[in-house]
Amino acid sequence: MTETERQTPDPRAIGVFDSGVGGLTVLHECLVGLPHENYIYLGDAANFPYGPKPLAEVRRLAFWAVDLLVKKGVKLIIIACNSAAAAALPQLQAAFGTPIIGVVMPGARGAVQETRNRRVGIMATEATIRSNAYQQALQALDAGLEVFPVPCPRLAPLIQAGDVFSEDTENAAREYTAALKDAAVDTVILGCTHYPLITPMLRRLLGSRVALINSAEETMREVTEILDRKGMANSVSREGDYQFLSTGDVEEFRAVGGRFLQLPIREVTQV
Amino acid sequence: MTETERQTPDPRAIGVFDSGVGGLTVLHECLVGLPHENYIYLGDAANFPYGPKPLAEVRRLAFWAVDLLVKKGVKLIIIACNSAAAAALPQLQAAFGTPIIGVVMPGARGAVQETRNRRVGIMATEATIRSNAYQQALQALDAGLEVFPVPCPRLAPLIQAGDVFSEDTENAAREYTAALKDAAVDTVILGCTHYPLITPMLRRLLGSRVALINSAEETMREVTEILDRKGMANSVSREGDYQFLSTGDVEEFRAVGGRFLQLPIREVTQV
Repeated sequence: MTETERQTPDPRAIGVFDSGVGGLTVLHECLVGLPHENYIYLGDAANFPYGPKPLAEVRRLAFWAVDLLVKKGVKLIIIACNSAAAAALPQLQAAFGTPIIGVVMPGARGAVQETRNRRVGIMATEATIRSNAYQQALQALDAGLEVFPVPCPRLAPLIQAGDVFSEDTENAAREYTAALKDAAVDTVILGCTHYPLITPMLRRLLGSRVALINSAEETMREVTEILDRKGMANSVSREGDYQFLSTGDVEEFRAVGGRFLQLPIREVTQV
Repeated sequence: MTETERQTPDPRAIGVFDSGVGGLTVLHECLVGLPHENYIYLGDAANFPYGPKPLAEVRRLAFWAVDLLVKKGVKLIIIACNSAAAAALPQLQAAFGTPIIGVVMPGARGAVQETRNRRVGIMATEATIRSNAYQQALQALDAGLEVFPVPCPRLAPLIQAGDVFSEDTENAAREYTAALKDAAVDTVILGCTHYPLITPMLRRLLGSRVALINSAEETMREVTEILDRKGMANSVSREGDYQFLSTGDVEEFRAVGGRFLQLPIREVTQV
């Protein structure tokens, strides 16, 4: 590509797909890092959560969602749902012409870059830990890492319910982080889109010597590099637009979503 | 890590290992991008080339080389030899405490970020193409890519011999790039450390619309991020030192190596 072509603004939106509101923490990082881009967020709240569903069902839902975003003309799609990415990312990439990325590889890469003692913890839902997606990505980048996966079944539901500073949440977080402290990890991947909401608590429990890897932030960095190199950035000076689509209850999406996005959500369209 | 700790300069050298002088193109990129770092380059020229050797033999040589660099106290090791990386990278990472990276994953990631039509070519030696290392790394990042691997058996020997602008080199390059032009790739990975030396010729043959991914440059970017995030950069203002070790003929290393490094090489120590 010539320099001139690269600099033409590409106003097509970035699509962000999640099984609910969790992926809004990824959108949040994108709004911070890439404020000039336009976004379409699709939350399949009617089918939340994907974790316990059979693989074939999750794959079917993910194909439907990506197809909808592609038809809306997005230039890049982020699968901000760990379950959907673990179940279907390669299949989605092979089936669609639009570039599609997950949150796992960027998160794993951030951890490999960050760790000094090469002992890395993963906090995630049981389904994500069971899928081995983070473990495999870490291993592909550094086969010499010692990886400590900790399933944290109670955290996401508590955070989803709004109990961010409750005693229950603190007790759960204390229990899950204890194993990581014992393992002397120096880096912990927040392998669930819900966990960035309790970052201050996790920092306190793990101590300042442990680096927390926010997969949402790593994914934003990856998107920044991709848009830059593909010449697909929306290089304009005004702030981008964003649009919210949900398969579930619109009012609930607005109420819960605002906490995850850390911005008021105005209009939500049911799809 | 606290900010103060991160900013303490870490003067330990970066180790760069190759089966000969080819890896000097990687060192060249590092000297450009990370001039304050100290480097130890180890070329196993006595055993060049690794490509045709049995897997177990390449693995044994790579272990010997990495062990030597670790004993010299390096903080990070770059396996700048595609054959050694394909044969032994995970085993080396698992065996040594020092972070070790190859050139394949950074090169693959650069290509995935860069391509717009998702048609990516790979130019490499027959051994590298046969190892499937680039193909696998590309697939792990984007399962929807169409990958066009082109073994280029004549290029590295011609470049090694110094025939960079000869008719033979141009004919070989023209033959190998023809397949990539037919395939309408928009991105080509230079999957051999020798090829950056004929970048101008390849640009002319492939046209300005095709992006060339220099794995050496991508690896330098990766090293930059790793040192930054691990707090291991040598954050001083003076230029770093470099040291050259070769298992082969010292004079030949100096003569051929200078072309690859694009700098005169003074002292070479035989090991």
